[in-house]
Amino acid sequence: MAAFIAQRRVEFANTDMAGIVHFANFYRWMEEAEHEFFRSLELHIMEKQNDGTYIGWPRVSASCHFEAPAYHNDLLEIHITVERIGFKSLTFYVEFFRDEKRLAQGRMKTACCICGLDTGLKSIEIPKAYRELFEETIAPST
Amino acid sequence: MAAFIAQRRVEFANTDMAGIVHFANFYRWMEEAEHEFFRSLELHIMEKQNDGTYIGWPRVSASCHFEAPAYHNDLLEIHITVERIGFKSLTFYVEFFRDEKRLAQGRMKTACCICGLDTGLKSIEIPKAYRELFEETIAPST
Amino acid sequence: MAAFIAQRRVEFANTDMAGIVHFANFYRWMEEAEHEFFRSLELHIMEKQNDGTYIGWPRVSASCHFEAPAYHNDLLEIHITVERIGFKSLTFYVEFFRDEKRLAQGRMKTACCICGLDTGLKSIEIPKAYRELFEETIAPST
Amino acid sequence: MAAFIAQRRVEFANTDMAGIVHFANFYRWMEEAEHEFFRSLELHIMEKQNDGTYIGWPRVSASCHFEAPAYHNDLLEIHITVERIGFKSLTFYVEFFRDEKRLAQGRMKTACCICGLDTGLKSIEIPKAYRELFEETIAPST
Repeated sequence: MAAFIAQRRVEFANTDMAGIVHFANFYRWMEEAEHEFFRSLELHIMEKQNDGTYIGWPRVSASCHFEAPAYHNDLLEIHITVERIGFKSLTFYVEFFRDEKRLAQGRMKTACCICGLDTGLKSIEIPKAYRELFEETIAPST
Repeated sequence: MAAFIAQRRVEFANTDMAGIVHFANFYRWMEEAEHEFFRSLELHIMEKQNDGTYIGWPRVSASCHFEAPAYHNDLLEIHITVERIGFKSLTFYVEFFRDEKRLAQGRMKTACCICGLDTGLKSIEIPKAYRELFEETIAPST
Repeated sequence: MAAFIAQRRVEFANTDMAGIVHFANFYRWMEEAEHEFFRSLELHIMEKQNDGTYIGWPRVSASCHFEAPAYHNDLLEIHITVERIGFKSLTFYVEFFRDEKRLAQGRMKTACCICGLDTGLKSIEIPKAYRELFEETIAPST
Repeated sequence: MAAFIAQRRVEFANTDMAGIVHFANFYRWMEEAEHEFFRSLELHIMEKQNDGTYIGWPRVSASCHFEAPAYHNDLLEIHITVERIGFKSLTFYVEFFRDEKRLAQGRMKTACCICGLDTGLKSIEIPKAYRELFEETIAPST
């Protein structure tokens, strides 16, 4: 299966005094790629339920390995794939490229949760409608 | 009356490739100083009401003039004063110093609002309990 | 003359616990629109000189008035115009729209500077090549 | 050996529309704790050399596991320890607490590098003066 690809331009504010992109930006871009992927499936990252709560996807963990610096004005390609669909969680694999060169790669695990302002976060089984859409994206594209 | 003073260390992530603090950080620091000022009065910036809505203080406007750059590791003093207490809004005057040198100064106007997840933002008259506390801070300290 | 228009999707990380875009993002988007405008003229925001210094455009001041909240997933149109070309500075006028609705408007003044790692910032007259390009963008488009 | 401890107040701008701290902030706080640790040893994170280059510590990788949400106004304790001193790199172990409750834990690996504006990043052996200071912090405190 092919990765879903998001593009981001490196903005001036993403750089630091070392002249390169500050590493914390990569985690935000990972999430932005995930959200673009959700939108491409017509899913919302905060889906309101009838009872006023939301189905959301808070992060369980995220890691990133930095292989080469990114610079101001670089056009980044962010490749994101669903690597594993768990009972209550998703694991994404993410790679960052500038042209052919890979700059970073990492993983992000998110939990499917009911989020209520008064109830906090409670992890739930991934709803069937979501699961089916994710499964399609990782089916072999023969 | 004396200004309320908050301190912030310039972090590495606050800098950009020009080697100085990125200007957008000053607006966040303005807000952080305002919130520290609120805490010093034992006020909350999002005060939950009995009906589940909040009294909040969204920004109406904010401006800042940059007079000299701030650098990594600088210890900034942020001086904030209530300049004007309106019917529904507050205007703060803010100055940023490194030692004796002023680096920036600006103003921030906030509106007292009822914030509800379903109702959006609705400006209201500043509640008496808040108003009295703000008035004390601008009374001449004779 | 028409404004230069940049588009930005409101990302999840741009929101705060009030459920709306945190105001400091607008200042970053102003700058991003300015930089896209520079790129459209094939200008660089940090132009390296033969002596190793850079011509850069640090902010002198920036102000923004917030008229209506922006929300997650909103597609923002940022309209930016050169309002005034000074001897050493540029003033931009910026408006933010979601569809027809204006959400915010502000101004940003930048100074043309020589930036060197050891010399700091020194304001200079706007070079002729830059000035001519800016003047074209504000010429009446008859 | 005891961990070095940094404290951070959760600011309003650190939250997102789910009402909790946005996960990307934890990576910035990891770095801020590392830099406070460096300052406590009277080391600089960007140390200028005689030839105009810098000794810096760019990130090789960073991971974080999120165990419980952090909220606005929380006072976080960030415990950071040098877990491993490699030939050219350091590995830090970091834990985030609110009172007794652990909210997150992760690791960050940084490489000792020569950073020059024209030369980019080049990893080097950790200088002896740095190494000795780091080793002292992980010596058993008997």
